[in-house]
Amino acid sequence: MLRISLLRISLPCSSSRILNFSQSHLHSKFRPQAMAYTTSSHNNNNKLLFRQLFEKESSTYTYLLADVSHPDKPALLIDPVDRTVERDLTLVKEFGLKLIYAMNTHVHADHVTGTGLIKTKVPGVKSVISKASSSKADVLIEAGDKIHIGDLFLEVRPTPGHTLGCITYVTGDGPDQPQPRMAFTGDALLIRGCGRTDFQGGSSLQLYKSVHSQIFTLPKDTLIYPAHDYKGFTVSTVGEEMLYNPRLTKDEEGFKNIMENLNLSYPKMIDIAVPANMVCGLQDLSAKPVEATSN
Amino acid sequence: MLRISLLRISLPCSSSRILNFSQSHLHSKFRPQAMAYTTSSHNNNNKLLFRQLFEKESSTYTYLLADVSHPDKPALLIDPVDRTVERDLTLVKEFGLKLIYAMNTHVHADHVTGTGLIKTKVPGVKSVISKASSSKADVLIEAGDKIHIGDLFLEVRPTPGHTLGCITYVTGDGPDQPQPRMAFTGDALLIRGCGRTDFQGGSSLQLYKSVHSQIFTLPKDTLIYPAHDYKGFTVSTVGEEMLYNPRLTKDEEGFKNIMENLNLSYPKMIDIAVPANMVCGLQDLSAKPVEATSN
Repeated sequence: MLRISLLRISLPCSSSRILNFSQSHLHSKFRPQAMAYTTSSHNNNNKLLFRQLFEKESSTYTYLLADVSHPDKPALLIDPVDRTVERDLTLVKEFGLKLIYAMNTHVHADHVTGTGLIKTKVPGVKSVISKASSSKADVLIEAGDKIHIGDLFLEVRPTPGHTLGCITYVTGDGPDQPQPRMAFTGDALLIRGCGRTDFQGGSSLQLYKSVHSQIFTLPKDTLIYPAHDYKGFTVSTVGEEMLYNPRLTKDEEGFKNIMENLNLSYPKMIDIAVPANMVCGLQDLSAKPVEATSN
Repeated sequence: MLRISLLRISLPCSSSRILNFSQSHLHSKFRPQAMAYTTSSHNNNNKLLFRQLFEKESSTYTYLLADVSHPDKPALLIDPVDRTVERDLTLVKEFGLKLIYAMNTHVHADHVTGTGLIKTKVPGVKSVISKASSSKADVLIEAGDKIHIGDLFLEVRPTPGHTLGCITYVTGDGPDQPQPRMAFTGDALLIRGCGRTDFQGGSSLQLYKSVHSQIFTLPKDTLIYPAHDYKGFTVSTVGEEMLYNPRLTKDEEGFKNIMENLNLSYPKMIDIAVPANMVCGLQDLSAKPVEATSN
């Protein structure tokens, strides 16, 4: 079945699609007149507003990105958590942003995603997840897709291994994009660690290849923003992880051995979180999935 | 009693003193040859390495700042926590930094500072706190002091009200200093909140005046980095807090009423933390305090 989303236009490049902010996409409820001072702390071009947000119970990071140079201030959230949706949407409102996408890096097993809840509160927001995750969402993405908010965009890099459908989102490469680049790595690469590989189609060898081919090939100053941190780190860089990640600096066989001997307990939230997160966190979500366009 | 620290030299300006990185200050144990990729995420001049670190139990933020353009990479830590000292010093070592100062914004009541422990592990590090805190430390600072690491410096702005000795450290003003500026506000100004004023010489009216005169007068894009956050925020700006802080946007009388009716419980750590933090977290610390020089 082939459905074409209004949010997509084809690119001349056969391997890329663009997910674009639609001008007709209105969220009057979340467009207050009050102006917030929106200086980004993570760019040198004054376009990007960026915030890192933490959910303490599951140690999850949610990321807010917006192009504040665009008149509509289009925005997206990466890995929102259900219990912190109100906090995140209050921030969106205070900044006067137009929330376009609520995205996941993967089907989380440790918390319930906030994407479905956000959709019920902000009409028009599109949920985004990888096609490879076999989940329901408004937009199902694949390798080479680009997700645009205003003049900013994120590249979609598949990084399976923690789960089959893991994605790393990377800010664009170009003089008008944030420098240094930023990689939202989900659970594929954590700061001085990585996600487990013993559930949800996980594979240690696949994760090793994903990180080395899709993340460690980025410029060394690329900022690493993971989906979780359990030790209080907030950010790392590609260069740092290539030097100091205690797992991914090993060779493939050494990494496999580490991952097979972690002796982790059964994930306590997995039986609740995974079924919910296959449908944007809401079991009764009626969103129609949009499959990928052919390239 | 007047003692002159080697770390201080007088300024022509009568109201300012400078705390300087001393070239003879060696920490061979913490000067590994390995290079880390130290791109800062918070400046546009490539001098500053900056990391925000979180201690989950007390929801405390520790900040690492270093001048990585200086051959010695001099560094300081603001508000280190005893239980996360190993994490912080590992990061210092990985980055190849020379830790010069371990500083506190105030005498914390909710956790034990790591400054004393750091001094036992990294010879030569100087602990820093305000003279007004009546605490012991190597360097006792006052209004107008500047704390230098390489070519970077922090201004010392007294912001009493949560405690008598609260300090806000603010990055320097100038083309060679990080832009936007960064204010490490301790508990004086929290993101959408502020510290309580019912212990340790606290005063709501004093806190109100401190924030309005010392923090809200900074450029509106100044980044606010508090000592704590309980809701998962990592950063704010002066402009945001002037618009959206639910307490400090009130008038003086309204603020006082809010602070007098918080009905907070007795701080559970105060009887352990405050006596310890009056002596850098170590009750048996033998550091000799250095009083302020006369100006």
